[in-house]
Amino acid sequence: MAIIECVPNISEGRRPDVVRAIVDAVEATPGVHLLDWSSDASHNRSVITLAGDAAPLEAAVLTLFERSLETIDLRHHEGAHPRMGAVDVVPFVPIEGVTMADCVQLARKTGEAVASRFGVPVFLYEEAASTPDRRNLEDIRRGEYEGLPAKMAQAAWHPDFGPATPHPSGGASVIGARMPLIAYNINLATDRLDVAKKIAAAIRVSSGGLRFVKAMGIALEDRGIVQVSMNLTNYEKTPMFRVFEIVKREAARYGVPVLESEVVGLVPSAALVSSAEWYLQLAGFKGDQVLEQRMRAAGPRG
Amino acid sequence: MAIIECVPNISEGRRPDVVRAIVDAVEATPGVHLLDWSSDASHNRSVITLAGDAAPLEAAVLTLFERSLETIDLRHHEGAHPRMGAVDVVPFVPIEGVTMADCVQLARKTGEAVASRFGVPVFLYEEAASTPDRRNLEDIRRGEYEGLPAKMAQAAWHPDFGPATPHPSGGASVIGARMPLIAYNINLATDRLDVAKKIAAAIRVSSGGLRFVKAMGIALEDRGIVQVSMNLTNYEKTPMFRVFEIVKREAARYGVPVLESEVVGLVPSAALVSSAEWYLQLAGFKGDQVLEQRMRAAGPRG
Repeated sequence: MAIIECVPNISEGRRPDVVRAIVDAVEATPGVHLLDWSSDASHNRSVITLAGDAAPLEAAVLTLFERSLETIDLRHHEGAHPRMGAVDVVPFVPIEGVTMADCVQLARKTGEAVASRFGVPVFLYEEAASTPDRRNLEDIRRGEYEGLPAKMAQAAWHPDFGPATPHPSGGASVIGARMPLIAYNINLATDRLDVAKKIAAAIRVSSGGLRFVKAMGIALEDRGIVQVSMNLTNYEKTPMFRVFEIVKREAARYGVPVLESEVVGLVPSAALVSSAEWYLQLAGFKGDQVLEQRMRAAGPRG
Repeated sequence: MAIIECVPNISEGRRPDVVRAIVDAVEATPGVHLLDWSSDASHNRSVITLAGDAAPLEAAVLTLFERSLETIDLRHHEGAHPRMGAVDVVPFVPIEGVTMADCVQLARKTGEAVASRFGVPVFLYEEAASTPDRRNLEDIRRGEYEGLPAKMAQAAWHPDFGPATPHPSGGASVIGARMPLIAYNINLATDRLDVAKKIAAAIRVSSGGLRFVKAMGIALEDRGIVQVSMNLTNYEKTPMFRVFEIVKREAARYGVPVLESEVVGLVPSAALVSSAEWYLQLAGFKGDQVLEQRMRAAGPRG
């Protein structure tokens, strides 16, 4: 069985009953596991984390659109987070037994179904993007819901699927495929914010560091320490152990020890297993030697 | 959902059709995953690895006994491996979402059912043992099938369940609960066998080392290197990272680098995740942050 993660963001975070009804409907889809969901009132936005195989997730996303379009109207939406659709963003994420190409195909198929069934224009992003200009979510979403009519009138911003004008209440949606994102922080045993900022600059791609690291240095004032706060956007190509070892080495240059690190939220098993493999110098290790993975590969029974 | 591993050993390894029929019958049990099976002709013995929740595994083991007793007759059995039953040993192993106490209870319940349904005497061993004398499999099995009538006539060797005389063709069976066993080897970049033997002596419990390590030093002659070959019998109390770090340190004392390590066969996810946690200095990490574990906890759907 393949495991794909799907993390839809919807533009409603202030009416718990509305969000709950949408989540319940999605969770009821056979073959879909609800892993997490949370609402942010100031953002007026909710994030739902699902997992399952391709066909169940496609069905769940169609249900999500159906229910969201019934109850969310962007003409009356405000919140701190940029958005352009009632269902704003839907990434598909390969976890196990599935390739990125499979997730790109799933994004295209789901996008096409959403556009034809609900008349919502769909833009494909990240690995599923049809042009390099559409890889970054921020570029697609710039101008937000209110700017959609003008933006979509430009030839460069015709959607990948669906009408060339926004859905009146539902706006437009962004659907795509990306690697899992790991929120990974390393805490330093010092209150020197300059050290955390220097290390963040050394490790992040934007200032010359590792390709799939976003980082900033922040103070944890209640604890009197500082943190290199990171997002790892491709743990296969920029693995956790390498990030940890480089940050530790950079910190040592300033005479600062690493206190601890932390993962916020979920992490795919493979990201931790590959770290164990590296530190233990495991040779010839295969993922299906992990008992639970072998069990999943054996498939559901009864 | 709980994950329990069950690793029955049966006394047949020379008739592939017989073993295959038993394995097929066991695999057909709803809720049971067949992870692996292999036969050894010189041992005349097969090892089957199953996983699932308690009730399905109990049903699978009863099917295993039914089929094995029909087709295996210890009166005509010979092989290099010591044995006393057609179904020789059945350990239940806690993997995830289940305690050792649960597995002990499952071993008792299954043992009772086997004895009452098939008239096979059952001895409980390891964590399920009724007395300290019965913890070790070797002690229970000493004398083998041929010695059972005399051994069981002693009060000290009355079975935990079932008749006080062996089953004519099926002998007696040993059922119990134990931690997962990890076959873990560390290869040294040297051909000095004395170094591997000294390190094995340093790390194994029998000569003063870690509580849950069995170890020996051997030569890998085709590769011109030596190996510390180990069984880790409780990865929670004697974790892989500690074993690796101590062996690495001992090797350094002889000027020998660690070349690599290897896991033979299956390893529970938690054994690798705890190693990643230690090396990455992860603070406050919880198992249900592993995406796949969260997914299993969410339970099967549809």
